[in-house]
Order: sequence, then C-alpha cells, then structure tokens
Amino acid sequence: MNISLLQKSRYGYKPILPRALSGDLGTLKTVTGEATESVANQNEMKQLFPISYGKPIVTFEPGEGSVTSRALKVGVILSGGQAPGGHNVIAGLYDGLKKCNPESKLFGFLGGPSGILDDKAIELSDGYVDQYRNTGGFDIIGSGRTKLETEEQFARCAEVCKARGIEAIVIIGGDDSNTNAAVLAEYFARQKHDLSVIGVPKTIDGDLKNEQIEVSFGFDTATKTYSELIGNIERDANSAKKYWHFIKLMGRSASHICLECALQTHPSIALISEEVEEKGMTLNEIVNQIVDVVVTRSKEGEDFGVALVPEGLIEFVPEMKHLIEELNDLLAHHEEHFSTLRTFEDQSEWVNKNLSRDSSYVFSSLPNNIQRQLLMDRDPHGNVQVSRIETEQLLIEMVADKLEEMKHDGKYAGKFSTQHHFFGYEGRCAFPSNFDTNYCYALGFNAAVLIRESLSGYISSIRNLGQPASQWVAGGIPLTMMMNMELRHGEMKPVIKKALVDLSGAPFRTFVAHRDEWAVKTSFTYPGAIQYYGPDEVCNMPTISLSLEAGKEFI
Amino acid sequence: MNISLLQKSRYGYKPILPRALSGDLGTLKTVTGEATESVANQNEMKQLFPISYGKPIVTFEPGEGSVTSRALKVGVILSGGQAPGGHNVIAGLYDGLKKCNPESKLFGFLGGPSGILDDKAIELSDGYVDQYRNTGGFDIIGSGRTKLETEEQFARCAEVCKARGIEAIVIIGGDDSNTNAAVLAEYFARQKHDLSVIGVPKTIDGDLKNEQIEVSFGFDTATKTYSELIGNIERDANSAKKYWHFIKLMGRSASHICLECALQTHPSIALISEEVEEKGMTLNEIVNQIVDVVVTRSKEGEDFGVALVPEGLIEFVPEMKHLIEELNDLLAHHEEHFSTLRTFEDQSEWVNKNLSRDSSYVFSSLPNNIQRQLLMDRDPHGNVQVSRIETEQLLIEMVADKLEEMKHDGKYAGKFSTQHHFFGYEGRCAFPSNFDTNYCYALGFNAAVLIRESLSGYISSIRNLGQPASQWVAGGIPLTMMMNMELRHGEMKPVIKKALVDLSGAPFRTFVAHRDEWAVKTSFTYPGAIQYYGPDEVCNMPTISLSLEAGKEFI
Repeated sequence: MNISLLQKSRYGYKPILPRALSGDLGTLKTVTGEATESVANQNEMKQLFPISYGKPIVTFEPGEGSVTSRALKVGVILSGGQAPGGHNVIAGLYDGLKKCNPESKLFGFLGGPSGILDDKAIELSDGYVDQYRNTGGFDIIGSGRTKLETEEQFARCAEVCKARGIEAIVIIGGDDSNTNAAVLAEYFARQKHDLSVIGVPKTIDGDLKNEQIEVSFGFDTATKTYSELIGNIERDANSAKKYWHFIKLMGRSASHICLECALQTHPSIALISEEVEEKGMTLNEIVNQIVDVVVTRSKEGEDFGVALVPEGLIEFVPEMKHLIEELNDLLAHHEEHFSTLRTFEDQSEWVNKNLSRDSSYVFSSLPNNIQRQLLMDRDPHGNVQVSRIETEQLLIEMVADKLEEMKHDGKYAGKFSTQHHFFGYEGRCAFPSNFDTNYCYALGFNAAVLIRESLSGYISSIRNLGQPASQWVAGGIPLTMMMNMELRHGEMKPVIKKALVDLSGAPFRTFVAHRDEWAVKTSFTYPGAIQYYGPDEVCNMPTISLSLEAGKEFI
Repeated sequence: MNISLLQKSRYGYKPILPRALSGDLGTLKTVTGEATESVANQNEMKQLFPISYGKPIVTFEPGEGSVTSRALKVGVILSGGQAPGGHNVIAGLYDGLKKCNPESKLFGFLGGPSGILDDKAIELSDGYVDQYRNTGGFDIIGSGRTKLETEEQFARCAEVCKARGIEAIVIIGGDDSNTNAAVLAEYFARQKHDLSVIGVPKTIDGDLKNEQIEVSFGFDTATKTYSELIGNIERDANSAKKYWHFIKLMGRSASHICLECALQTHPSIALISEEVEEKGMTLNEIVNQIVDVVVTRSKEGEDFGVALVPEGLIEFVPEMKHLIEELNDLLAHHEEHFSTLRTFEDQSEWVNKNLSRDSSYVFSSLPNNIQRQLLMDRDPHGNVQVSRIETEQLLIEMVADKLEEMKHDGKYAGKFSTQHHFFGYEGRCAFPSNFDTNYCYALGFNAAVLIRESLSGYISSIRNLGQPASQWVAGGIPLTMMMNMELRHGEMKPVIKKALVDLSGAPFRTFVAHRDEWAVKTSFTYPGAIQYYGPDEVCNMPTISLSLEAGKEFI
C-alpha cells in the first residue's frame, strides 16, 4: 500500500471509547432492560421471530470484580456500499476480541456476503489491521451486494462457520443487511446452531436511524465532505456571480444527506424528497418553486445561486412515480411491438397513445432527452433506470424553459447560466472524521462484548452521541425491535423500518425556519475540509442534524 | 456573513512572512541585480517597452538603520477566475501598506477590471479585511473577466486613479492580466503619469510559471482539493472493485493540475496534453492506450481503475485541433446554407462531404453525440465550443466501443462499468492551504514594499518556496523579462509566455518513471482533505511538483 502523509499520521490516532468499554472488560456490568416490542405489526413479528422477539435492550456499565473471558472466534462481513469508518469497526472488533481474550481470532469474509457462501476469508492479524486503522474505504476485506436471505444460504453460513470454529458473525451493513441479520439470527437459534449474529448500522444515507440508533456510521464524514465541496462552490458562485450551480447529492430514498448539507451550507435552494411526496407536488410545481427563487434573486442583481437536489427526488414526485410504473408496465406487456418501433418519434407517439391521460400529459411535458432516457435506457428487465435519470439536468432544462417564456413575456430579465454536479463517490471512502473514527471503533469494540455476552440478533449500539465520546453509552438493541411488516416484491416481509426525513423533526423544522431567508439573501456558509487535528470545535463536532436531535440549538 | 467553525478558527492563523518582510520595513535593503532580457524576441520587446524593458530583478534583504515611508494610496484589482488565497494577497497588501505608514490607504476596485473603468471601489478597513483573512474566494471585492488592453481604457485608469489620489495599482491575475499590467505600466510611464503597476501571479492552472515564478498562487490548494477527491474515489474503486472512474480536471491549456494530482494519487491512467501534442497522438491512439490498461488490469481480475483527463486534452490532439479549425472555417463560410439543413443526418452528410479527407475520417469516427455537439453546440460567433465537449465521456464511449469489438473477437472478457466526474469549481475557492495562506500573504505584503520602492512593471515575487516560509526570498521581477512575441487573433503580440508542462522537467519525468507500474499494479494513494492544523508534514508541505523542481526526492 502507498501511504500518504495524512494516512501515516492518522495511524497514530487513538480512538476514544465510551467509559464502560475503556476499562477492564472483565468487570463490565450488563444491565438488562424490559422485554421489547417491534415498532409495528407486533403479532406477525412475534410469530416470525418466536425466539428472537421481545429480547431486552442491554446496556454496558463499568462494574467491579474480575471475570475472564473465553477465547472467541468471530467472522466479519462488510455488506453493500462503502461508508467512512468501516475499517475502524473492524479494528474495534479486533481489539475488543483480543482484549476479551488474547487467543480470540477474527476472520474477515472477503468481498461481502458472498465471501461466507464461498468460504473465502482471511484471519486478521495485528500487522494487517494496523494498516487500516482510522482510514476510509472497505478495502480491508472488500464489500459486495450479495444478499443473505434464503434458507439454503443460511445453512451454508452455518456450515462454513462450524468448519472454521466460528461462533459469531458480525454483519456491517444497512437496513437490508441488518434485516437479513435478524432473520439469520432467528434461523440459527431455531436450528440450535449455537451461532450468534450481531449487526452494525452502516450507511452514508442516514436512513438506518430510529429511537435506538441515533445515526448510522459514515453519515457524519460523507455529509461533511459534501458540505466542504458545496461550500467551495458557493464561495465560487458568490465571487464570480455568474452561475447557478445545481448539485445532486447521493441518497437514493431518503433526503437526510441533502438536509444536513443544507443546514451546513445555507444554499439558495434545497429540495427534500419527503416534503415533495407529503405535499404531492408535481414536477411543474417544483420547477416553479425554483423559478421563483431565481427570479427574485435576479431582481436583486444576483443571477447566481446554489440548489441542492436529492438523488432520489424523481421517485417521490407522485406523478413521476406513477408515470414510471405505467411505463414499466406498458413496455413489459408490449415488449415485442415496442421493439419494432425504430425511431424515437414513433416510440413516443405509441407510448403517448397508450399511457393514461395524466401520465401522457406528464410524459409530454418532459424535456426531449429525458423522454428518450425513459424509453431507451432500461435495465435488463425492461424497467426504466430511475437512478440514471440526471435529475439535476432535468430541473435545469425545465427551469430554463420556463424562464425563457417569462423573458418573452417581459417578466424576467436576468441571465440563467448553469453548472451541474453530482457528489456521491467523493464522500463514501473519505478518511473518517474524528466522530466516525471514534463511533465506528466503539461500534466494533462493543460488538465483541455483545458476542462475549452470548447475545444474538442484536445491533451494536452506541448512544448519547450528542455528548463527547467518553460519555457515550454502549450496549445492544434487539434487531426485531426496529422492524415492521412491509410490502416487498408483492409480499409482506419483516423489515427494519427505513427512516425517511421526519417532517416534524428538529432538522427539517430548522431548515424550514431559515430557507426563505437563504433563498433571497445570500447566506452561504463555508464549512471547509474535514479537520482531524486542531481546536475541538473544528474537528470534533457531530452533524448539525444530530446536534439538533440531541436538543442543541442551531447556530 | 455566516461564519463556519473552521472559518472562525482560521481567522486566528498568523501567516508567516519571509524574513526580509517580517522585521522593521524601514530598514529593508533593496538589492538590485543586472539589467534583464526578455525570454525571447528581445529586439521587438525592447521597442515595444522602451521604458520598462531591461529593468533589474530586485531582492529585499533585512538591513540596518531606519527609514520612514510616506503614506501610500493604492488600488487593487482581482482579475479572472478564482484561486484560493486571493483574499490573503489583499490582506497582505493591506497590512504591508499600513506597516509602511499607518496613513496608507487601500482601495478595492469592485467586480474585476471593470471596477476601475466604472470607478467602482471601496476603501478597505481593518474590520472589513479581517472578515476575509485566510479564507477562500474572491468575494472580498469580486472578480471579473474584462480585459484592460486599449489605450482608451488605460487613459480611463489614469483618470480614475488621479481623481482618487491613487499612485499604484496592484493587478492580481493570470498570464493575460499580467501581460496587460506590463503594457499598462509602460503606458503610464510613457504618459509620465507617475502611476505604478504591480502584478501578482494567480491561477490554479499553474501555467504562469517560469525561471523566476516558481508557482502561481492557488495551484497548491486546488490540486490538493482535487487530490483529496481523487483519492477518495480511488479508495471507493478499490473497495467496490466494479467501476472505472474517468475524472476530468480543470485546466484549459496546461496539464499541470492533472500531473500534480497524478503524482499525489497514483491513478491507473493520467493523460498529459503536452505529451499527446508532442507525440502527435491521434484520438484512436489515446483510446488504444487506455484500452491496453483496461484489458491488462481485467486479466488480473481488476475490472476497475481511475483515469485522469485534463480538461483541454482535445485541443492538443493534432487531428482534433485540425478538425475543429476546419469545422469553424466551414460553418463560418457556409452559415446560410448550413442553417437550411434541418436534421442531424443532413448536416453530418454535408459536413463530411466538405471536410478534408483526413478530417472527414476523424469526424466519422467520433461517437454520434459528440458529432452532434460539434455541429450544434456553437458559440455566438459560430465556433465549436471546445470547452463544452465532455472529453471524459467521449473517451469512455470510444473505449467501450473498442472493448466491445475485442469481446466479440474473444480478446477481452471483462466488464467495463464507468462513472465520470469533472472537478474544477470544487477547488477554486477552498480555504487556502497553509502554503497558499503564507505565500499569498507574502505576495501581497511584498507588493506594498515594491510600491514603496516606486517600482512599476514588476510582478511580486516570493522565491525559494521549497523551503519553510521563513526562508522564502522576497523581491520583484520585471514583467517584460517573462515575455515574448506570440500570434494572437492573427497579430503578433507581446505576451507572458504560458508555461506548459515541461516534458523534460522533474515532475513529468517522475510520472513517466512510475506510470507503467501504477497502470498495472493498483498503487492508489489517498491524500485526504487539506489539513490546516497538526503535524508539519501533514499541513505544511508544498505540492510534489514544486518539491521535485526544488530538487527534492519523490517519496
């Protein structure tokens, strides 16, 4: 590995553990709470998880006396998209296991969940783990998107673990992977396999969040990295005063990233998908809302601005969601005929005739190249590839058209020059912020203790994150507690409830309280690059969303 | 202004001045060198600059005794695109003038060079300047792209300065703006206006560089910001192992940015425009070169990589340059007929018939959407908008086509999934690195001393930049020394010679020595975000290009 100067220096950082985990683990006290309930569908959940359901929340506290731990053999899996801090979860887990008993062993399954099915693993050693401490990326053992969800796969997992003498699997993943971890834990218990499963909450999207999980790891670093870039672009916009920058931000279903970045950088516009859906907004209404801001600013001589757009917006616009469903349906049922239509003109004519009146209207009002994309750029199943739609460019085109009309009618005299950006990959593997460095290390270390306590079907939990790391609270949350029944591929399934932006929560309310001012009066704020050294307030602050949720004030 | 926590903290940073400027300015010793010559066309230059030509290099050294300065009244202009550190040039100039004499005054002309023509200026005060210290952006007084080049404009400058009692103008700009500063200085002298002009070398592109100017300000911060992002993407690529990322980097004519970022991040591929031109490479040859790397890596199971592409590449490919010239010519001479051709098919047929055989071949081999762009996306003068061509996507398409062919022929069995990025605006207004913070402050402070010494037609010069800031050497370089005659818009003009990447220089040679290994063996290096605090080697290093040019080794 080629080591940058920062990487070399970061190796020296010692993550701060919650007080309960920082002392002699032998003396740790496990405080067990009351029996828990799932967030909804309690009866169904109880039937689906007869063994795991209702387990108590556990909290670790410093205790007295001394207990020796047995040596533990554990396997760890990185599942899904990268998030800053994954390496520290593994480093924390490794150190925690070794602290429980120096004879403990940690195996890393390679390339994600497929690693366990293919029995591809390496045993982690001091020297190997040390190369990855406090760094970004998932390259320590690699990640992948295979889902562990069938009984056949579960049986294979048991087989592989037994052959290796592994007694517990730690799955580092998002809501889907943790859902599967819960099902796997129940399967192991039902089959009396004496294998435990512990989840760790990962995702930059921030949508694995609930009463118990204050934030998933990686959200802090990713949003700070995007905010750095947004701030830099804002300052450029405010210096040159000639461009509107439209910035699309990763986050397929929830707008937490967009909201946090807006709170950090005070852009002229930030769209929140959940609000668009709640209000049942049309694409035209969104465009008009943007046009209003552009025109108002233009009247003040400010023909520039910054607009943040969440990646998943289109799917939250009811009429677009409906159009896409109709298109998928239509093209699936008439694939053969559709394939005989050679030109775009013939295709769009046929589609327009066969869509419902509403969807046909929506389709016709889209810019030409987006119509093309909807008809031509489909996945192997014939479905429209929503994630490929360049939403930021769609909005730019529609806003420009509308402004052109207004100019013609003498209602607008400004200039609308634009630049567009998409930030996603830039933030998923950044060096974790001090917050994520500490948080991830604690999550991993804590997972080791949960395993030592022979717990299964739990997610590693570090709470009280609004306070300094030493005051964080370690423990475990039963995965079933965060679950409910949802329709997936036509079937009701038990899943961890995805956390969309809460429109009555403090972060969104704070944004709403300020956005009208930010729209009119340039209020750009420039957070700058993540700092790992230096003054406490510069390098150790959590996200604004987390601070607000912890009851702190917006500064 | 809304102040981020980092911004607030950065206000407290005290830039380090070269030793000569850090003491009592009254005792400063001015060491005057020999008469200088221009880099080329000495005779023409002597005739064009009868007064300014041949002036000596001056160097400031700490001296003895005490001299009191008169109060100075100075105007400052920010010209052209933003570069990190511009605010510190102004803060340094302000502090330097005040240190010469507390009664000195600094006026900032607003919105770039047009500010002086329109006599729009503000007088800078302590409180105002303090808000901008050590921050990115040009928003302190704004910038603009108006060029000061006609005698009429020069006369207006003199008029405005005299009315305000201003005795010197500091122009912070790139090669063009400093060229104009030289012409303006000569004009003032010829007209006996007793007005001096001092330039400051600005540009993130790094192409204002020569024997005397080691680097233009902003290059350090911009390349470090891009390298942060490239490194993060590299780590993502290496974790997910499924994408080839094509990253276009700002820098219209020179590839210094691309080269420096390659030295910092060790990508699989980095194209250098100057090499492409030197070797007379065709687009196909470039594509084949990329394909070779993709195929070789694929054979090792590595269907991923990172390729850096300089923004201006297309114009350095001789056949493309030629095609574009022919197209511009053709469309200019047959505008009327061309406008009667309604469909793209008709247009391309006509163009193909009328281009030379070579250019027709090149045109036909381009992907369809690039052909469209060349014909349809033209500026108000009918010229092809080269900067709008999405070079990174052009390369992706051509590489994908070639790989498809090879797959068909059984010569390639990999997967070529891609992502593309363009980084430019992300780095132009970042908080300046400690290097740029110190360098810019020194450049500005030094400009004040040059004015006090009644020098004109000089560029502020801080040398020995490979050493710690306190060992830097301050002085002035006559602008004419860096100039030669070049063809501009059909006329020979005296201009500052633009510094392209020197193919025999240490940075390029170092890159060449390593690139074959980087191509095959993933050697990604992750520099991380710019650090302003912390260990010296993490926050105070200059760029690798500068270190190599200063004779240091590549680590």
